[in-house]
Amino acid sequence: MGHPKIVIHAEQSEKNPGLKRETWGTQIVAMLRIPFDEVQMRLAEVLRGLGFSEERALKCARLFAETTRDGVYSHGVNRFGRFVATIRNGSVDRNAEPRVVARFGAMEQWDGQRGPGNLNAWAAMARAIALSSEHGIGCVAMANTNHWMRGGTYGWQAAQAGVIGMCWTNTLPNVPPWGGVEPAIGNNPLVVAVPRAKGHVVLDMAMSQFSYGALEGYRKRGELLPVDGGFDAEGKLTRDPGAIEKSQRLLPVGFWKGSGLAMVLDMVAAMTSLGNATHAIANDPLRETGLSQMFVAIDPRGFGDAARMAQIADEVVESVQHSRPVVEGKTVRYPGENTVRLREENRRLGLPVEEGVWDEILRM
Amino acid sequence: MGHPKIVIHAEQSEKNPGLKRETWGTQIVAMLRIPFDEVQMRLAEVLRGLGFSEERALKCARLFAETTRDGVYSHGVNRFGRFVATIRNGSVDRNAEPRVVARFGAMEQWDGQRGPGNLNAWAAMARAIALSSEHGIGCVAMANTNHWMRGGTYGWQAAQAGVIGMCWTNTLPNVPPWGGVEPAIGNNPLVVAVPRAKGHVVLDMAMSQFSYGALEGYRKRGELLPVDGGFDAEGKLTRDPGAIEKSQRLLPVGFWKGSGLAMVLDMVAAMTSLGNATHAIANDPLRETGLSQMFVAIDPRGFGDAARMAQIADEVVESVQHSRPVVEGKTVRYPGENTVRLREENRRLGLPVEEGVWDEILRM
Repeated sequence: MGHPKIVIHAEQSEKNPGLKRETWGTQIVAMLRIPFDEVQMRLAEVLRGLGFSEERALKCARLFAETTRDGVYSHGVNRFGRFVATIRNGSVDRNAEPRVVARFGAMEQWDGQRGPGNLNAWAAMARAIALSSEHGIGCVAMANTNHWMRGGTYGWQAAQAGVIGMCWTNTLPNVPPWGGVEPAIGNNPLVVAVPRAKGHVVLDMAMSQFSYGALEGYRKRGELLPVDGGFDAEGKLTRDPGAIEKSQRLLPVGFWKGSGLAMVLDMVAAMTSLGNATHAIANDPLRETGLSQMFVAIDPRGFGDAARMAQIADEVVESVQHSRPVVEGKTVRYPGENTVRLREENRRLGLPVEEGVWDEILRM
Repeated sequence: MGHPKIVIHAEQSEKNPGLKRETWGTQIVAMLRIPFDEVQMRLAEVLRGLGFSEERALKCARLFAETTRDGVYSHGVNRFGRFVATIRNGSVDRNAEPRVVARFGAMEQWDGQRGPGNLNAWAAMARAIALSSEHGIGCVAMANTNHWMRGGTYGWQAAQAGVIGMCWTNTLPNVPPWGGVEPAIGNNPLVVAVPRAKGHVVLDMAMSQFSYGALEGYRKRGELLPVDGGFDAEGKLTRDPGAIEKSQRLLPVGFWKGSGLAMVLDMVAAMTSLGNATHAIANDPLRETGLSQMFVAIDPRGFGDAARMAQIADEVVESVQHSRPVVEGKTVRYPGENTVRLREENRRLGLPVEEGVWDEILRM
């Protein structure tokens, strides 16, 4: 196909830092490097074929391509096939656009109308940003939407607009609450983004220590997790990914703490949007729909001292970067730092896409 | 002194569920049960002696007594001596009241003027609640304040007012960032509170898995931590509390995740309030001052369907409570559930106060 192809052995992935090892489970993977524009155009073509308008196809495709460009391989091009499946099975309504249900000051309640999750989330964060420029803080609570793919996207969106962004989503039940054995809470990703001229600080964290995708990757490579990731069949904490896949007892971050945080984030999103909470969402990745999400933007520039604000951001980042590292010679990293490096590398070399995944997309 | 006195052996604390075992390090403790009003009055008397006005003394004393009443012993009456020390050494200015620095729509920037942290925080959350009833969402960012003692207080305050509350504070540097070995981030507690007629759901979580106070308790009892709480001198994860106290390498919740969350919460609070970030706060508990805090209230009742909102809250709580527990016969708990039980018990029996602590307060 004319794209540079590299064969990645697991042990070589260190030399291709753009390739997150969690993403590919197999020992040997043929990886293509495809220019960003070509990826976006092909995905847009597929979406148009599914009935997306020209503009929405391009935008949706761009968000997928940007996710891979930024190194979040699990939710970019690799996720596209599953996204297409949810369009085909009707879980996602390709033509639906979100609509405002209620307005109250700096807050709005939206109905996502089961449209594509990334387009809905982008629109909701854009509106929260606009509200924040008017009211200092703005919030959109959206019910009835779909998986937003990579949550960090909407954090980068806010930071790029010069404001602080916070957003979270609920999910299908995939984590047992602390003290329980069956999945009854979601891993409800939380995103907090802070604008900074020298590199935005963007945290994008799910409430389980590892995702099922990550567990699968470790298992296929025959590796143990770097830290405990859940419980085995006997209820003991374990680093064995296969044992956790079997027990379905993923570990919440911080044990009881992340379990509680997942629960309250779910409540806030569902109560404010009057949408579904996790327990009401179908426990099937291909039928997961009707999610509730919160988008908050804070624009402290209205207070008038943007220079001091920028200085504080730099000082925090530098204080962490200059603190003494575990491994001598390494620098302590901040959330989002790696993204900028991967973004540059993937722009330069082309997006890394597994040959089999690309073949599938070409056949769509 | 006429108060019922019980002698608590560590192994008996199960029979006195109001007595959190983490709180008292020694094997045998003489514990008094003192009526709430008597505790509040004595603390207020001490504060008046230090120059607090009548009204502020009563309110500040009430917040300390309520914290012990709610079972958060580490930050209630047991903490009062340290609070008094910070008044005496000038870290806390007893007469200072917070003032508004800037207003912009639904947001306000406040200067805490180094007043008592709990009075400042209460006032800031009260204002955020008022802003939310006007704008749907309201936010107060406060610089230059002091330790707010128990963060959950301001969550309960919001929930009691019928709104969703979110607040967080930064702290002195007490946790190493992920990848670092020296304390460079704070354990920055985050509070999320959801109102619910049958019992508010209030999460109050610091970003370290355990506090130094908790480590001390486990060490004195000769117990291991229930889960890994930090690193030993060799950089290995450990459940040995003494080893972590020595290394000063507390574990952030969820390893890299809590480390990132602590950092962005610090940035948002400091940038929005134009106050100190963690790195700029004196690393000495008696000189820790000039903190930055965020108070957000969300009042979705403006959207008009309070009944549905209440129903969603109940459904989430029940779905978690009814999920299958690890220990048969037990119920999976939600954040804040235990508080209500302890509150009732401590109201009935009197606040549990260690005899030595009470003696010290009587001598103040």
